[in-house]
Amino acid sequence: MRKFLYILAAGVLATTAVYAADPVPADLRQTALELFKPLPSTIPAVKDNPITPEKIALGKALFFDPRMSASGVFSCNSCHNVGTGGDDNLETSIGHGWQKGPRNSPTVFNAVFNVAQFWDGRADDLKAQAKGPVQAGVEMANTPTQVVATLNSMPQYVTWFKAAFPDAADPVTFDNFAMAIEAFEATLIAPAPFDAYLNGDENALTLEAKQGLNIFMDKGCASCHGGINVGGEGYYPFGLVEKPGADVLPENDKGRFAVTNTADDSYVFRAAPLRNVALTAPYFHSGKVWDLKQAVAVMGTAQLGEELDERDVDLIVAFLGSLTGKAPEITYPILPAETATTPKPTANIGN
Amino acid sequence: MRKFLYILAAGVLATTAVYAADPVPADLRQTALELFKPLPSTIPAVKDNPITPEKIALGKALFFDPRMSASGVFSCNSCHNVGTGGDDNLETSIGHGWQKGPRNSPTVFNAVFNVAQFWDGRADDLKAQAKGPVQAGVEMANTPTQVVATLNSMPQYVTWFKAAFPDAADPVTFDNFAMAIEAFEATLIAPAPFDAYLNGDENALTLEAKQGLNIFMDKGCASCHGGINVGGEGYYPFGLVEKPGADVLPENDKGRFAVTNTADDSYVFRAAPLRNVALTAPYFHSGKVWDLKQAVAVMGTAQLGEELDERDVDLIVAFLGSLTGKAPEITYPILPAETATTPKPTANIGN
Repeated sequence: MRKFLYILAAGVLATTAVYAADPVPADLRQTALELFKPLPSTIPAVKDNPITPEKIALGKALFFDPRMSASGVFSCNSCHNVGTGGDDNLETSIGHGWQKGPRNSPTVFNAVFNVAQFWDGRADDLKAQAKGPVQAGVEMANTPTQVVATLNSMPQYVTWFKAAFPDAADPVTFDNFAMAIEAFEATLIAPAPFDAYLNGDENALTLEAKQGLNIFMDKGCASCHGGINVGGEGYYPFGLVEKPGADVLPENDKGRFAVTNTADDSYVFRAAPLRNVALTAPYFHSGKVWDLKQAVAVMGTAQLGEELDERDVDLIVAFLGSLTGKAPEITYPILPAETATTPKPTANIGN
Repeated sequence: MRKFLYILAAGVLATTAVYAADPVPADLRQTALELFKPLPSTIPAVKDNPITPEKIALGKALFFDPRMSASGVFSCNSCHNVGTGGDDNLETSIGHGWQKGPRNSPTVFNAVFNVAQFWDGRADDLKAQAKGPVQAGVEMANTPTQVVATLNSMPQYVTWFKAAFPDAADPVTFDNFAMAIEAFEATLIAPAPFDAYLNGDENALTLEAKQGLNIFMDKGCASCHGGINVGGEGYYPFGLVEKPGADVLPENDKGRFAVTNTADDSYVFRAAPLRNVALTAPYFHSGKVWDLKQAVAVMGTAQLGEELDERDVDLIVAFLGSLTGKAPEITYPILPAETATTPKPTANIGN
């Protein structure tokens, strides 16, 4: 952990050393505690889904299993890669038949703390979210019936479902598939130096990160990007003050409007949760901005109506670097072997 | 381990219980030791590539890193998935732009013990093999220059290469990329019940597996499928006695002929290493046969000129089940974060 903090600090210093002299308010941490919350030290309770070790283990297998996609090529981990910040570092994900998804893949890390899932919040929670990509034609292109048939074809999966859902008469269901994935994803929590700071360690942040935090709160960024995930708690128009260009905010994606069908929700999106943002370029739902400094500057003009100067941008980026968490250690699951009744992957059909 | 053996034994019994009464020769294990070798208990030495913990750790990161592909979508693990027997369970792999590869992806487990790599043996060893898919247009579609630029753009990779190649003036090279992957792959050894048997544990195999082993040796299967990997040691014509149909042996893939350009090598392939064969359907270089029993029957007619009866096929399959190894435990690597100079993935271009 000491080494991790050192590397982070070194990186931050390299970009922002010129601003080292400015002071920060003595009550900075107190102010921060009014707007943000540190990650908990334990796996959170999840609504209507008691978390057990058996459910987590099953969910991990499902998360990494490419046979949950029709083609046999994609797993949840393909687009929410636990080795690269919990996302895929693409503008928008590549799915079934090399189709391009409509929006940038969000990180799975700490996602359990978001108020709702997807950029438009159309899934109430992770168990609802987990059912989306597996059925989306441009992603995994599968069906609930086929997923259940695939799972039932492998005796090891049936055993694991029974262990994870011991009270269920019929444990292998698409609902339980989603519940198990939610249970695993609830363990994907990545505590960051900012948590150590909120918890009382004044040395966990560099001076630059503290200066950036001060600016972040002072300018009003925290009004939308607050709470435990530094965002992910509410819905706001992208372009509150000034709409960004169509490259960053494509006209045909009206965001939450598609969920609520109310005009006020045109171009409204869930404020991006900013934990691990330094690992999850490119940015915005369009994935069109690769540089975090540029993304911060876009936010300044679009949401605050203010051209942030270079110093402010650099320091905010230093603060955002303090949100990079230590990813959980995950042992790669050994997946059940197919049998004669396992539905065949469609990857080679029609090629 | 006890549980593992129990599950395997139960599976084998279920398919072959009807043949339980037949005896096996008293010297079966001695005969087997003349034809096969157990896996070693330690990571093997690799030619011209001293294995170090630093090299293994670097190789593991590279093996799992999708940014080694031009698109940013595929890693080595995509087609050699360590959770599914070290292969991808597709007829032939899906690569860049959803192109279909020409041959079935072989397992990476125990591959270090093969005499050469690829179905046609065109790579002398794993370090040579590792350079292939990353450059193949239908697979990862990258270039050595781009791979090295990608690696050099991430300071953490540069640090890891320096640690893995401490004597190199210029450690971040495409050659060293391949050497590190070879070092990691040399650790992917999966000892099976058959190893325990060869090492002296008479109870490691069920009676049916022993009967199958006896038939496997008696019929001459071990002439090609012998040695440490139960195959993978030499080159033989597919269709030695009788050519299988064009669905299984497509006419346009002449195998080793493309490597040696000698007529004798038409439709010659490296004998498939049979370790973990029960996990790695579909079978043959064409990937056209999904049922292991059918694959064994095809081998009977094509290579032995004999229609094996159902009993022989069932027992041989029981023996092949004893080659299913315990996959190594792998902690998913946390990969370095991209920087502003990291080449952009091409996945979203031209879509």
